[in-house]
Amino acid sequence: MYIRDVLAGSAGGEGSRNLAAEAQGSGGDGNHNTHTNAITRLDGHQLLVLTDVTRFPELREGSDWRKRVSEAHPGLKIVVHDQDTWRDRTFPKDLDWAHTTLLLSGAVFPTPDLAPELEYIQLQSAGADPINQTPIFKETDVAVCTTNGVHGPQIAEWVIGTFLALNHQLSSLPFFYFCVSCVFPSFGEPSTQPQAHTKYRGILGYGSIGRQVARIAKALGMDVVAYTNHPRKTPESKRDTGYIVPGTGDPEGEFPSKWYSGTDDASIDEFLASGLDWLVIAVPLTESTRGLISESRFKLLSSSARPQNTEYKGDVVKPFVTNIARGPIVDTTALITALDQGWIRGAAVDVTDPEPLPEGHPLWSAKNLIITPHISAVSNSLGHRIADVLELNLQRFSEGKKLVNQVNRKDGY
Amino acid sequence: MYIRDVLAGSAGGEGSRNLAAEAQGSGGDGNHNTHTNAITRLDGHQLLVLTDVTRFPELREGSDWRKRVSEAHPGLKIVVHDQDTWRDRTFPKDLDWAHTTLLLSGAVFPTPDLAPELEYIQLQSAGADPINQTPIFKETDVAVCTTNGVHGPQIAEWVIGTFLALNHQLSSLPFFYFCVSCVFPSFGEPSTQPQAHTKYRGILGYGSIGRQVARIAKALGMDVVAYTNHPRKTPESKRDTGYIVPGTGDPEGEFPSKWYSGTDDASIDEFLASGLDWLVIAVPLTESTRGLISESRFKLLSSSARPQNTEYKGDVVKPFVTNIARGPIVDTTALITALDQGWIRGAAVDVTDPEPLPEGHPLWSAKNLIITPHISAVSNSLGHRIADVLELNLQRFSEGKKLVNQVNRKDGY
Repeated sequence: MYIRDVLAGSAGGEGSRNLAAEAQGSGGDGNHNTHTNAITRLDGHQLLVLTDVTRFPELREGSDWRKRVSEAHPGLKIVVHDQDTWRDRTFPKDLDWAHTTLLLSGAVFPTPDLAPELEYIQLQSAGADPINQTPIFKETDVAVCTTNGVHGPQIAEWVIGTFLALNHQLSSLPFFYFCVSCVFPSFGEPSTQPQAHTKYRGILGYGSIGRQVARIAKALGMDVVAYTNHPRKTPESKRDTGYIVPGTGDPEGEFPSKWYSGTDDASIDEFLASGLDWLVIAVPLTESTRGLISESRFKLLSSSARPQNTEYKGDVVKPFVTNIARGPIVDTTALITALDQGWIRGAAVDVTDPEPLPEGHPLWSAKNLIITPHISAVSNSLGHRIADVLELNLQRFSEGKKLVNQVNRKDGY
Repeated sequence: MYIRDVLAGSAGGEGSRNLAAEAQGSGGDGNHNTHTNAITRLDGHQLLVLTDVTRFPELREGSDWRKRVSEAHPGLKIVVHDQDTWRDRTFPKDLDWAHTTLLLSGAVFPTPDLAPELEYIQLQSAGADPINQTPIFKETDVAVCTTNGVHGPQIAEWVIGTFLALNHQLSSLPFFYFCVSCVFPSFGEPSTQPQAHTKYRGILGYGSIGRQVARIAKALGMDVVAYTNHPRKTPESKRDTGYIVPGTGDPEGEFPSKWYSGTDDASIDEFLASGLDWLVIAVPLTESTRGLISESRFKLLSSSARPQNTEYKGDVVKPFVTNIARGPIVDTTALITALDQGWIRGAAVDVTDPEPLPEGHPLWSAKNLIITPHISAVSNSLGHRIADVLELNLQRFSEGKKLVNQVNRKDGY
């Protein structure tokens, strides 16, 4: 639904602004020949949709999405092969690979010789790891695009929801699943109940997830500071150039009151010692981020905690830590120590190391912790957002424009 | 901290804007004589702080707040009497009531003859109910102000936190308090996990709480529609004229995409039948709102549910209901039926009818429900916000301006 409005230039909400600008090229050149170009460019093209369309009704014959795409690109042939490539990695060799020019797939890809006409592969994942070791990635320059950006809104909800649940002691209240005594537990003194507003918080990794967390945090009344790998000093470098669900995220990078950067130890320490009340970990797992949050860094974070509101100076609340990135970025033993020693007041992790977390693992009994099994991105909106990225990229491909979320083969993401 | 910045005209965040405009009168007249006027007006005045200052360190001798107020109003005498008037209703008759012109109190008030010089009473509650049956309220025109607006941010966090907790099935996951088996429960199919984004939701009562809920909901990507008692058709009528914690709420009333109003049955029904995905109840309890959400209205709400996203038409998610207002606004038996029959997909209530909810009450075993014991406003920020309202009103009083949150004796709130 999003992209149609955007491409048609209809009056969308605030969020459409950016994608609309994107879709028209950086300057918004007002070219009205878009539609004509589209017809020309996708004539003779064949899109193979290789996914389990039971989960993605948008992609099925007769859907609004299909009607819209066929109308925009009448010369485009769409072939659907119903296979969940995550669970079934069998290569479907009987398909018409020879004439396939455009491909949507999660985890199964042709060799270069089988699909010599292939020009664009749309992945279903935010990362390029399902394809980056295959010949078609390593030996060709076929455009490969991720769906980076489609998970941000849902994961941000999880981040905010778990943070508020622990802050508001919801877990100590009689949730419907756990109503054993069915009387109210005694409640803490009012003054011990922290409040998000006026807190100073930090987001480690200011990508699509961090940006949407920042948007909600700002609405809650928080101050936001960002850490990124590379410095973001100019307005251009602060911009989010990937796919953005309209109305979400921080397209222009305008929310952080301060930006930190640098991969050396001193830079990371500077960020962690800046008085963060809440550390949200949202960086990719790389060799430089593995074990990043160690015991000494938990100590640093803890000892740098500032009074929660400047009016009542005695009121120091220890930081909260959220990990929705990858388990190994945090040292698990250090996390347990930090929780049990009260260096941090609580944590919420959707990812663990090891994962899945085995029965009896000591992390299960750490204090003030919410653990979920890598499900923070799960939602009923995923399908139509993936279809949305594909639709956007078909349009841009038809116009000869730079695709959204295209993988840089040198960086590998 | 807030008001000092505002009154000093220092570079505050976005949130200061409104209070700054307020503090300067509607036009921002740029009068620089404020400080001089202040000194003149509060000379000879005596402020009695009748509250438990153990809970409100801001009001104690030597606090930043006290220093600031004394600096702004050097002629003002401040007397503190440490008594929790909510728990101890004894009237402290030995105080110097005769010379008290300004009073902060929660639940204990003098008779008119005892305090003939009294000009302004600052309550500690959002409602005027602690005072509205007393002679000083009924027989004088002493200015009485509530602290309406101080609870919004915390209650809004509770509203969003409980909504996300149930939406994301957090209550079925191994929270630290409830880790019994310590293995992950099986998780629902991805497509059954709803997401806040793109939902159409409605707020019944667009006061300070509803407005802050709306701010966060917008950041989550939702559409917001508002219902108010009186029509709000002009920009002026949409404005929040009460105390606003800077950076929170919806000062100009710009978030709702549609406003509903009217106290007659047809108007309420029109709002409830407008396809709400989430109903947040935030109206005061009056004779016209008692029992407002009845069984037939739950049915109406349920049958008006719309597909959650317009792309995938089959995906209708039943509405969610939140009550942070007063228990009797919702018919308790109807709520149980609506939950157990699946007319609504879940609910979160911080208030119940009866309250406290007795052991064994059937509401305890209703499906998909979070109940908390009227604690959604509890936070460690309450004290400095109450002090903030008092500081703002002392300043305005000294300038002869209209006070913030002044109770209209005719309406009684």
